[in-house]
Amino acid sequence: MFDHAEADPTLDPATFDRLEKPLRTELVLQQYQLLERRDRAILLVIAGIDGAGKGATINLLNEWLDPRHVRTLAFGQPTHDQQKYPALWRYWRALPERGKIGVVFGSWYAPLLRRAYAGRLTDQELLTAAERLRRFEALLAAEGVVVVKLWYHLSREAQQARCERLDADPDTAWQVTPADRRVVKRFTRIRRGAERVLRATDHVMAPWHVVPSADERCRIATTAQQLQAALTEPLPVVPPVDTFAPAPDRLSQLDDSTKLDKPTYQQELLHWQGRLSRAVRTPQFQSRALVLVFEGDDAAGKGGTIRRITHALDVRQYRIIPVGVPTDEERARPYLWRFWRHAPRLGEVRIFDRSWYGRVLIERVEKLVSEAQWRRAYDEIVEFEREWVEHGAIMLKFWLAITQEEQLKRFHDRERSPFKRFKLTDDDWRNRELNPQYRAATSDMLEYTDHAHAPWHIVATDSKRRARIDVLRTLVERLEAETSPRG
Amino acid sequence: MFDHAEADPTLDPATFDRLEKPLRTELVLQQYQLLERRDRAILLVIAGIDGAGKGATINLLNEWLDPRHVRTLAFGQPTHDQQKYPALWRYWRALPERGKIGVVFGSWYAPLLRRAYAGRLTDQELLTAAERLRRFEALLAAEGVVVVKLWYHLSREAQQARCERLDADPDTAWQVTPADRRVVKRFTRIRRGAERVLRATDHVMAPWHVVPSADERCRIATTAQQLQAALTEPLPVVPPVDTFAPAPDRLSQLDDSTKLDKPTYQQELLHWQGRLSRAVRTPQFQSRALVLVFEGDDAAGKGGTIRRITHALDVRQYRIIPVGVPTDEERARPYLWRFWRHAPRLGEVRIFDRSWYGRVLIERVEKLVSEAQWRRAYDEIVEFEREWVEHGAIMLKFWLAITQEEQLKRFHDRERSPFKRFKLTDDDWRNRELNPQYRAATSDMLEYTDHAHAPWHIVATDSKRRARIDVLRTLVERLEAETSPRG
Repeated sequence: MFDHAEADPTLDPATFDRLEKPLRTELVLQQYQLLERRDRAILLVIAGIDGAGKGATINLLNEWLDPRHVRTLAFGQPTHDQQKYPALWRYWRALPERGKIGVVFGSWYAPLLRRAYAGRLTDQELLTAAERLRRFEALLAAEGVVVVKLWYHLSREAQQARCERLDADPDTAWQVTPADRRVVKRFTRIRRGAERVLRATDHVMAPWHVVPSADERCRIATTAQQLQAALTEPLPVVPPVDTFAPAPDRLSQLDDSTKLDKPTYQQELLHWQGRLSRAVRTPQFQSRALVLVFEGDDAAGKGGTIRRITHALDVRQYRIIPVGVPTDEERARPYLWRFWRHAPRLGEVRIFDRSWYGRVLIERVEKLVSEAQWRRAYDEIVEFEREWVEHGAIMLKFWLAITQEEQLKRFHDRERSPFKRFKLTDDDWRNRELNPQYRAATSDMLEYTDHAHAPWHIVATDSKRRARIDVLRTLVERLEAETSPRG
Repeated sequence: MFDHAEADPTLDPATFDRLEKPLRTELVLQQYQLLERRDRAILLVIAGIDGAGKGATINLLNEWLDPRHVRTLAFGQPTHDQQKYPALWRYWRALPERGKIGVVFGSWYAPLLRRAYAGRLTDQELLTAAERLRRFEALLAAEGVVVVKLWYHLSREAQQARCERLDADPDTAWQVTPADRRVVKRFTRIRRGAERVLRATDHVMAPWHVVPSADERCRIATTAQQLQAALTEPLPVVPPVDTFAPAPDRLSQLDDSTKLDKPTYQQELLHWQGRLSRAVRTPQFQSRALVLVFEGDDAAGKGGTIRRITHALDVRQYRIIPVGVPTDEERARPYLWRFWRHAPRLGEVRIFDRSWYGRVLIERVEKLVSEAQWRRAYDEIVEFEREWVEHGAIMLKFWLAITQEEQLKRFHDRERSPFKRFKLTDDDWRNRELNPQYRAATSDMLEYTDHAHAPWHIVATDSKRRARIDVLRTLVERLEAETSPRG
């Protein structure tokens, strides 16, 4: 894998001079076309042996390209606060919008590489991590973020010679970092660790490219050529999702008969709110988070249910995220970006009033996305939820169902109420007409995204009181089980 | 100030019933009109005695309004990471866009109130803090963010009675927080502290309103009426800025004669880069930050100068912020919001390639803002910079000047270069024609925003090498002086 690079190939000055001008011209031209086209963002992952010229590459890119549309995304060890969010959060947050180029230093490979260099990465760990990153990168690629992974490499001798040359002059010695110096001693281990990680994470949606770096001209030319390919080549073809059988209707067997009288309801409400307020104040909860997802039919009572929950919470501890029309910053990035913005922080509660399921509900039914897009969304969503859950989030998803008759009754109630009629829009009536389509989409969603780490709970809401207590009880029992001192 | 509220006035049920329906209808109607009009955002600051029903107010607002357009902004004690940013940063970051309502819990008054309650706030400290917050709120108001400050208040007896009533039932005891219980004992001190803070921070652009809270109906009705006023009343009139005399031309006396030969330049460059790289790695710098602002004529060499600086920095330590066209999320908020997004973090470097000075340069010259807007911008900007500097930022602002002749020469060079001609746009030629206007605007800017905590440095750039070394030397000398172990 590294043989070619460790032969320290060079590019003679004459060839480089002939290459340089057309390459620069082409790159900056392509950059402006990208800005016009906005069909993709580029993520250039800069990794490699310390002392191979990664830092110099950034200066080069900023000189060759229009730097106003290039963003350097550099990540160090996660800070105390960053550790309270899922690991991929900070990379998601920094994603450039389509039309722009992001240059990534200290990427999601850095933690893995550190462990591999130190010989503390088992094959099983590597396999698990690689699969996770493969999915992350494949999702980005499918959503128009071209991930180009460059590994800067050179022979041990060339690395050592470069350090010694810079070190000899006090005016350039600052360019040699402690990490550069460590490479000399640990070259074999670093090389072996890097090879394992690169082989495990090389895949068709985001392959690795080794850049020979002993010779500056060779390093520059290779970098520029890779970037040019990313700018001009067709977007990677997303492998089609296996066809799936439409799911059976899971909403028809709902028991919506039992009602709750008002005194019992109020007693139960206070009881469960009390338990909820205690459950989120335990020391155990401080290393967990709570994510609640509310989806459901119009007028099924999402808002009222959410208020019964937040009533028991400290306002500093929770955030409600109402999901509506995306902003232009959101539209210019992969679909899930707008939800990663609101990733849970340990010790806190996030309540989504509608959610990422919009993709397989309204966007599917209204044909705002292609069939290929919503079909692959099921897997992407499950993976996305897993990222949050594995970091400590307790995730519950509620589907609030209502019968057609009760919905009609509530619509009419809204029409008659001067301060509720604003809640009723033409879309609500239209959605009623589309009920069969929504029902099919809902059944598929419940079938394909119901998984142990983030189960769906279907709640019949014709009896509002019963429904609110059902939600609170489900939530509190799960929360208590997951945060019991022995759990 | 609190006499009326401490009389614990009540609203009889009949009056409330008569009020409630029209008030709710009006509120939700106004909310939708706000969403259409987008002429303002509302910030409802919820403060007051603990146990006065602040939490219940939030539930009420979410029930009465369409909660999808209301955001609760709750702030606790700043986390470890938040403390690394200027104090107002987290409030700025959370500002709702125009058309929306933000409900603020634990506002910028919380730290001040805590100190006042504890009797640890001197008159001088209060005066300074109040002036700072007055400017903050006045700026928001001037930019279309209506700040409504509500203080929920009740008598000591009513507070105590409420706590005891809830405490008596184990199912409601969780609603009484430790803070609520402390009020009973410390009522007099809290009352006195609050009165001092409220009096000092009550001003016409954002007055305080005391909400009698012993009676739920009275509390609800008052809150709703205040919100309604914020939604409907004309925006506060911004007091006009004192006229200012156009500044003398500060760009005509520039010495641009000295040049630097290449070997000397390269030697000097390495020397200053070395010192820079050491200066940002000192322990002293970890509690400071560096903010560099680059403004200047087209083709004066901002990009090249910035690259000479970043070359000496660790890529994880700095961020370049190129300032171009704002996004829609940015346009929907006060002008300075887009720069607060990039506030400096202690131990890091932020380099602005163009900046907030766009308001008094291009936006003034191109008449994108009214004269009143750019005139008040000078003061707003000085205040904004002071917020960053007082938190530890070392701020240097560079104006890169070029003669008309040299600029023309570089424009022609760019035209001839296949990979530089993209840097030259029609705007550049147009700006040359507007040179007299830009020159006047620049002179005013240099005059009215040059202050000790963030001085302007005017750099003649006809000699590029000389200019780069000038910038580096200025920067390094200031940095070393400010971070010397005894400094």
